[in-house]
Amino acid sequence: MIDQFERLPGIGPRTAQRLALHLLRQPEDQIRAFADALLAARSQVGQCQTCFHLSAEPLCDICRDGKRCDQLLCVVADSRDLLALERTREYKGRYHVLGGLISPMDGIGPDMLQIPSLIQRVDRDGISEVILALTPSVEGDTTSLYLARLLKPFTQVSRIAYGLPVGSELEYADEVTLTRALEGRRAMQ
Amino acid sequence: MIDQFERLPGIGPRTAQRLALHLLRQPEDQIRAFADALLAARSQVGQCQTCFHLSAEPLCDICRDGKRCDQLLCVVADSRDLLALERTREYKGRYHVLGGLISPMDGIGPDMLQIPSLIQRVDRDGISEVILALTPSVEGDTTSLYLARLLKPFTQVSRIAYGLPVGSELEYADEVTLTRALEGRRAMQ
Repeated sequence: MIDQFERLPGIGPRTAQRLALHLLRQPEDQIRAFADALLAARSQVGQCQTCFHLSAEPLCDICRDGKRCDQLLCVVADSRDLLALERTREYKGRYHVLGGLISPMDGIGPDMLQIPSLIQRVDRDGISEVILALTPSVEGDTTSLYLARLLKPFTQVSRIAYGLPVGSELEYADEVTLTRALEGRRAMQ
Repeated sequence: MIDQFERLPGIGPRTAQRLALHLLRQPEDQIRAFADALLAARSQVGQCQTCFHLSAEPLCDICRDGKRCDQLLCVVADSRDLLALERTREYKGRYHVLGGLISPMDGIGPDMLQIPSLIQRVDRDGISEVILALTPSVEGDTTSLYLARLLKPFTQVSRIAYGLPVGSELEYADEVTLTRALEGRRAMQ
């Protein structure tokens, strides 16, 4: 059991031991419930057929939610990024999960991601704006530029702001971030 | 000597000891040169009369540089922020150093900063754009809004972008930064 826990990300030998010893002190039916939950999750959780977010149903909670704006589509690399954006409670549109970023170095081309389904969806559903919410890295920038070129015939394309993170000190910001913050300056309302 | 070094920011007892022992091993004239440099810096470095950056001359290097754009003025809280922006080698305009941020909690009002001199300068020099480069904090935002209101009758006012720092992961960004990144999204060219 300790070995199994240690294989999880961010769990070292001491934490693995603590978790294992904790479980050993629990009644057997509780351990069984834990084991069942693991198996059930693995067998039941698949991908939403529309947005490719993790989902136990053919359509995920967000795609089924009738109160969301249908004209706004936010493109993210994976489900963790979608969940981060949901935590802001600011975004009210739909999502599309690519399943990764274009990375020639790692042999990941556009056809290995949910890009054809994205184009189809934007064309079919009359999306008025696609917001690209990809990380500011070489792969993220490559993917953003590639998608912008593909999507422009169908809709308006924007990209989230890159600049100083809230709570940071300007004097400690790296040169590339400061350059982006200067380039991306906005008129004060 | 160890005590004096320890009073410097970021220098603990062990580093202070190492620096002091290093100096003791140097020839006496080198220690005298070090001491003289400290005294000279204190007595000679003042503020630029135009932009209030640190300067040994009445006008700082940047204000004397004839190759810089006279129509663009970047407002920063202090000289450290100015030096951070200079490291990007992207910005070619002039600066104005406020000497702090408006902070009612700390009793710092607009009249205690270089704000009257800023308004005067913008009015007199025909500045076409003022870029506010203040940290994304309560004090920075307060100061930006205050300055934007004052400066708008004279010139165009913009603010550096707040959003995801370059090289960061979207999934680990805090909610406020992600919200700002969404709000500040830009159309792809």
